[in-house]
Amino acid sequence: MMNVAEVLHMNGGNGHTSYAKNSLLQRNVIHMTKPITQQAMTSLYTSLDNPKTISIADLGCSSGPNTFLAISNLVKAVDDHRKKLRRPHSPEFQIYLNDLPTNDFNTIFQSLPKHEEDLRREIGEGCRLCYFNGVPGSFYGRLFPTNSLHFVHSSNSLNWLSQVPKGIKENKGNIICVATASPPNVIKAYYDQFESDFSTFIKCRSKELVNGGRMVLTMQGIKSENTTFYIWELLALSINDLVLEGLVEEEKLNSFNFPLYLPTLAEIKFLVEKDGSFTIDRLEASQIHWTGIGIDDNDDNTTISDEDINGAGNNVAMFIRAGLEPVLVSHFGEGIIDELFHRYSKKIAHSMSTYPEKAKFTSVTVSMTKI
Amino acid sequence: MMNVAEVLHMNGGNGHTSYAKNSLLQRNVIHMTKPITQQAMTSLYTSLDNPKTISIADLGCSSGPNTFLAISNLVKAVDDHRKKLRRPHSPEFQIYLNDLPTNDFNTIFQSLPKHEEDLRREIGEGCRLCYFNGVPGSFYGRLFPTNSLHFVHSSNSLNWLSQVPKGIKENKGNIICVATASPPNVIKAYYDQFESDFSTFIKCRSKELVNGGRMVLTMQGIKSENTTFYIWELLALSINDLVLEGLVEEEKLNSFNFPLYLPTLAEIKFLVEKDGSFTIDRLEASQIHWTGIGIDDNDDNTTISDEDINGAGNNVAMFIRAGLEPVLVSHFGEGIIDELFHRYSKKIAHSMSTYPEKAKFTSVTVSMTKI
Repeated sequence: MMNVAEVLHMNGGNGHTSYAKNSLLQRNVIHMTKPITQQAMTSLYTSLDNPKTISIADLGCSSGPNTFLAISNLVKAVDDHRKKLRRPHSPEFQIYLNDLPTNDFNTIFQSLPKHEEDLRREIGEGCRLCYFNGVPGSFYGRLFPTNSLHFVHSSNSLNWLSQVPKGIKENKGNIICVATASPPNVIKAYYDQFESDFSTFIKCRSKELVNGGRMVLTMQGIKSENTTFYIWELLALSINDLVLEGLVEEEKLNSFNFPLYLPTLAEIKFLVEKDGSFTIDRLEASQIHWTGIGIDDNDDNTTISDEDINGAGNNVAMFIRAGLEPVLVSHFGEGIIDELFHRYSKKIAHSMSTYPEKAKFTSVTVSMTKI
Repeated sequence: MMNVAEVLHMNGGNGHTSYAKNSLLQRNVIHMTKPITQQAMTSLYTSLDNPKTISIADLGCSSGPNTFLAISNLVKAVDDHRKKLRRPHSPEFQIYLNDLPTNDFNTIFQSLPKHEEDLRREIGEGCRLCYFNGVPGSFYGRLFPTNSLHFVHSSNSLNWLSQVPKGIKENKGNIICVATASPPNVIKAYYDQFESDFSTFIKCRSKELVNGGRMVLTMQGIKSENTTFYIWELLALSINDLVLEGLVEEEKLNSFNFPLYLPTLAEIKFLVEKDGSFTIDRLEASQIHWTGIGIDDNDDNTTISDEDINGAGNNVAMFIRAGLEPVLVSHFGEGIIDELFHRYSKKIAHSMSTYPEKAKFTSVTVSMTKI
């Protein structure tokens, strides 16, 4: 039985397969949702009457350049808006970076002095100090004292469930819940787990946020079509290739499922409203190419030249690997990982050139206010 | 030039030479000063009218079993006192564990679930949750927002200066400031650095603590006699042995000085009063045998049997090694470390059996209230 809290962490350090070096997509997701987080923060700041301290938590911060990106955007949004409102005194920022205890916090902390310097250079002396804290623990439980936070941000983390759903033996050949391919009881088991986890998350945060506090959550989701699953199906197919060649036992593949769920906007809306502690300010889906390039609504197919396609396939595979390797190693062992991602990158490259319209992730974002 | 913030950290991990495995002495220092910290905490808790949250910072927490010891004592002190005062609601505890960014926070965070369970078992459900945060940064600068802390604790950390004092070339043959052996200008340079660092520390904490907040600081110090330096002289002699055998260049030893200062009670009193933000509640010195065994005022000589003396010498050397190895490696290189500590442990064993009255550390503790 997989202990999710123990195996679920990004690849640590700064090496070739580390999350830190393979996080362009998350970077662009944060960039795409910046107008939403900015709006939530400036509206919070306006509502607080010259606050002395603003407490911000980033939940599921992982370890890499993006760890500081979302926070920097929020601090800059306050500083810009403060100047517009002509408030003379900048608040202090109490910043909490949360992830599971197995996350590589040492790497985050060692890169902190550089990021603090960057932030000071960008904002100047008008901005008072940011105080950084690491908060180890699952966000499916309480992490902060009652009424202690003003703003919660989480990007690309709430897809991870607290455990693999129970009773999903029939999900053979799939490695996540695939709406078009998994049996109904598997789909229900996955949804039930997501409902339970997401509701717990909302309940905990509603206790920790002050009234009027904001929360912006972004995660991988599904819109209407099911193209979002495609990248997962390719990974399942790559593992299946190894089964056919006798490198992985079929039973190993059949018994493997990621503790990962891709919700719809409607599911998120339903669960937030059911809890009743928040009003939803914005609820939006956006699409991003597998390579991390943003997609305009009008320009559906991002074209990559033939020479670039293999490199691009490799980049996408490395990005997935940085996030999933620890989970895969815990189930399949270390021996197959290089081979698996070699095949996966080829399949990704082939798909991007053959079915460019399928090479997209959907991101769903909800912005809400604690009432 | 040594960058103290980069090289000053305990040996990480859980191995044979790790700080985690060699921290009995610090443990006993925390135990010896427990009545003082307990008194400060219960008096704080009584003065706060049913507080919802108590914020506690441990500065220089390092990574090991002691990281949680001081904090656990403080949380238990509140819980016991709450029952005595018959207050029905336990506060929540916001706990900040601080050390330099190079400290091994990953090891702390990974052992957190076990420590949380221990604490819950000892205190029971009456105690509400403790929320743990890691705070990377030098305590010779601001670490927390204004008026955000109720209690600050620091044990065995404030001896470390922010840098090796300048202008101490004449301190040849010594590796710290030795009152009986260093030239006057070296003694002055060390004191000036301590005065500057300690005053900065007090100034920063006075901004971060609420009015009425408490601070208890314990560090290695000197009482009246100078026996406290003896363990450092033995280390200098051990390095000198390697010089005589050509394993270390004489110039390397002459140019080496630890960024470490052992203050007197009078120096601490003077600097706290000069700052003026705190009243001193208690100011005390206590002695502890090198092996970590507490010493009664009446029983000056702790006796160790002849069979145990070599093991005891090794334990003391390992304890010192766990704290100093990174600093020594940065100056002398890794190659000499095993040999150095082998000789050091022999000298320690010999001294403990020949001059048992010299085998003592002095701890100084100051307990104060923010006014």
